[in-house]
Amino acid sequence: MAAPRSLSPFPALVERRAARGRWVIACEHATNLVPDALAGLGLSETDRAAHIAWDPGALALARGLALALDGVLVAARVSRLVYDCNRPPDAAGAMAVKTEHYRIPGNEGLAPAARRARARAVYLPFHEALRREIVGRIALGRGPALVTVHSFTPTWFGAPRQVEFGVIHDADDTLARAVAAEAQARTGLRTELNAPYSAADGVTHTLRLQAVPYAIPNVMLEVRNDLIATPAQQAAMAAALAPVLAAALAGAAPAAAPGAAP
Amino acid sequence: MAAPRSLSPFPALVERRAARGRWVIACEHATNLVPDALAGLGLSETDRAAHIAWDPGALALARGLALALDGVLVAARVSRLVYDCNRPPDAAGAMAVKTEHYRIPGNEGLAPAARRARARAVYLPFHEALRREIVGRIALGRGPALVTVHSFTPTWFGAPRQVEFGVIHDADDTLARAVAAEAQARTGLRTELNAPYSAADGVTHTLRLQAVPYAIPNVMLEVRNDLIATPAQQAAMAAALAPVLAAALAGAAPAAAPGAAP
Repeated sequence: MAAPRSLSPFPALVERRAARGRWVIACEHATNLVPDALAGLGLSETDRAAHIAWDPGALALARGLALALDGVLVAARVSRLVYDCNRPPDAAGAMAVKTEHYRIPGNEGLAPAARRARARAVYLPFHEALRREIVGRIALGRGPALVTVHSFTPTWFGAPRQVEFGVIHDADDTLARAVAAEAQARTGLRTELNAPYSAADGVTHTLRLQAVPYAIPNVMLEVRNDLIATPAQQAAMAAALAPVLAAALAGAAPAAAPGAAP
Repeated sequence: MAAPRSLSPFPALVERRAARGRWVIACEHATNLVPDALAGLGLSETDRAAHIAWDPGALALARGLALALDGVLVAARVSRLVYDCNRPPDAAGAMAVKTEHYRIPGNEGLAPAARRARARAVYLPFHEALRREIVGRIALGRGPALVTVHSFTPTWFGAPRQVEFGVIHDADDTLARAVAAEAQARTGLRTELNAPYSAADGVTHTLRLQAVPYAIPNVMLEVRNDLIATPAQQAAMAAALAPVLAAALAGAAPAAAPGAAP
């Protein structure tokens, strides 16, 4: 299929810019949109609706958390199959040619210039928008914290997954451990640290790029997507997890005292 | 003095965008320019010409290296006293109120909104431009390496500095050690690792933000500014250091084999 050497940029979706809370909420896999120029990546509509193309339910959950926590939301506007914003451009998964048992014809044999065009059109605008929110809040002395919101499929290569709520960390595990502990104390969710993935699987790129260099609290959440399939489930999950995040942040990384030097 | 809550953005200076070599050359302290809106930060013209406002000679050296190595150059367009692009926004040195024995009146008592305006106008555009060059080269499979080019003053608080060439690293010391070894082997420069500063002084922010998350080779160079005060000295230093960098990169981080997967 055609692999255009340039693509129009897709600015990230940013909601609640004026939010005054500490949380910056990122959703890299918010949508399954494939730009027309890419001809559906050669996939059927059914395949493009599957979890390989996005994290079903994640955007609605992220929105619910942003509202409950007075946080800002930054979400990608195109499918992870076009470019996975949670991967650096040299990762196999950045423009995957295979994921689970699906082949992605539109990503096969991509020329270097086409790979660069994807990175420029999708990855850079998303991370610029996210950085802008984080850096602005650091400059204001707000003590921001980053949470990335994902969902995972209940079965993977045919095997059912028992974990319901995964809490994943990169170099700094402080906030992740606090979130897992609060979830175990406050919810009935089957919660595990670094499941169903961990940093060793290359899934913490956004944390590493956006939070670690600033030494701000950070954590990645993974919710099993059958638990956030409907608007009612999504709202219930946001209502369950918002207090978990708030308590974890207050305990693990208290805000600076009022009047403290920025 | 007035602290405007907004400032026009200063896009970074990017030269040799089409360069085909592996080096991405950054110069955070290239100029002593203070935008008119900031009324000279309350400093005399003499103070604004001093090393506190910029790294004299660094931009010319960086340009010479870019030319010799077929690298791309990304430089900040305003003084480090307005915003030091090698510092995160919560560092005291990002908008310093004191540096060596100088007071910076225009940075005293900056309101949070003014700090954010500085970060947005100077820091974000610089790092977006630098990231674009690095990410583009990673996507192309070019195996980019980042070098940041600085100069330091021969005397600090009245004490002379003997070191002539400092080679500084962040988490990954591979390239820095190779550069120091090649400099000792190929030049007569008095070379030291992590001098006159080190990562512990907070001077490796650019490396940490731009290179470490991508695991690309990276190093920070510091040249004593009396050795690069004239165009002839700057050209000679570039001619001396370009082969040092080339040999160090070839030894420490060989390019991917032709045809290797990106």
